[in-house]
Amino acid sequence: MSMVRPSVHPVEAPPLTDHATPIHTMKDIQGMPGTLGGLLLRFLQFSFALVSLSVMATTSDFPSVTAFRYLVAAVSLQSLWSLSLAIADIYAILVRRGFRNPRIVSLFSVGDGITSTLTFSAACASAGITVLIGNDLNECAQNHCSRFETATAMAFMSWFAASPSFILNFWTLASK
Amino acid sequence: MSMVRPSVHPVEAPPLTDHATPIHTMKDIQGMPGTLGGLLLRFLQFSFALVSLSVMATTSDFPSVTAFRYLVAAVSLQSLWSLSLAIADIYAILVRRGFRNPRIVSLFSVGDGITSTLTFSAACASAGITVLIGNDLNECAQNHCSRFETATAMAFMSWFAASPSFILNFWTLASK
Repeated sequence: MSMVRPSVHPVEAPPLTDHATPIHTMKDIQGMPGTLGGLLLRFLQFSFALVSLSVMATTSDFPSVTAFRYLVAAVSLQSLWSLSLAIADIYAILVRRGFRNPRIVSLFSVGDGITSTLTFSAACASAGITVLIGNDLNECAQNHCSRFETATAMAFMSWFAASPSFILNFWTLASK
Repeated sequence: MSMVRPSVHPVEAPPLTDHATPIHTMKDIQGMPGTLGGLLLRFLQFSFALVSLSVMATTSDFPSVTAFRYLVAAVSLQSLWSLSLAIADIYAILVRRGFRNPRIVSLFSVGDGITSTLTFSAACASAGITVLIGNDLNECAQNHCSRFETATAMAFMSWFAASPSFILNFWTLASK
């Protein structure tokens, strides 16, 4: 009987792999909606947009230039959008849930893309005019150059804070 | 012997699955580098940027405005970048290979992001100044308003053609 050896050996069970999840998951990166970093980004966007809006709106002659009117409209939209998403983030943090629904994430991504593009274009147009008034024409004596510059810089800062939100949302959407 | 039936039946081989590829592959979408659609996009970007550059550079007084000088620089960069990538696309189509290397795709994505952002910001600044000269100050009699408008519009068209390239490259990068 010692010659007879079992020909069937038990084999180890293959490791359980979940094929439904892709290889690179980026579920908990700070800055995505529903995280503290995302809330911080929204707060920065909102603050900068609000400062830009108030500085530009308190100059007396901004309605005479189309680009400045456009800047006021764009940063108003940006501040409203960022405030809404900040409230959504606060809610998500309080109930300790993330935004996993692809529809919600795509809505956030498209909205972020639109508002940040509007803010950036308005900031660029205002920067062009501010540089024209200040450097090319040297008419800062009659105009509120420093206020225009502050409002433009704050709009750029708001765009800088809005870009990571957009890129992270878009990345989340694409890697799903 | 008719009672003895083979207890081991041949089973069908499981279908060959490649676990290295994720579920959602977007390998052959037109517009990505190495496709005919991508080549068409590069050609459009290059043409619009070149038209914008030549229209703006033939006005006599563009160097007096900072934003117009910036537009000339930005569309020059855009046309050079699009021409280089168009040549790379033609090569890839001729040898019938795509760009699968993630490093190449990320390089293309970052370059597209930078050039398209520069083109867009220059177009916005020029648009702000063109609207200021044309509508707010009504000084079109002394300036080349129609040329400024044409150059700005062509820069915007170049940006419109550059955005799909950037978004598709970024999507390819993120979904890998």
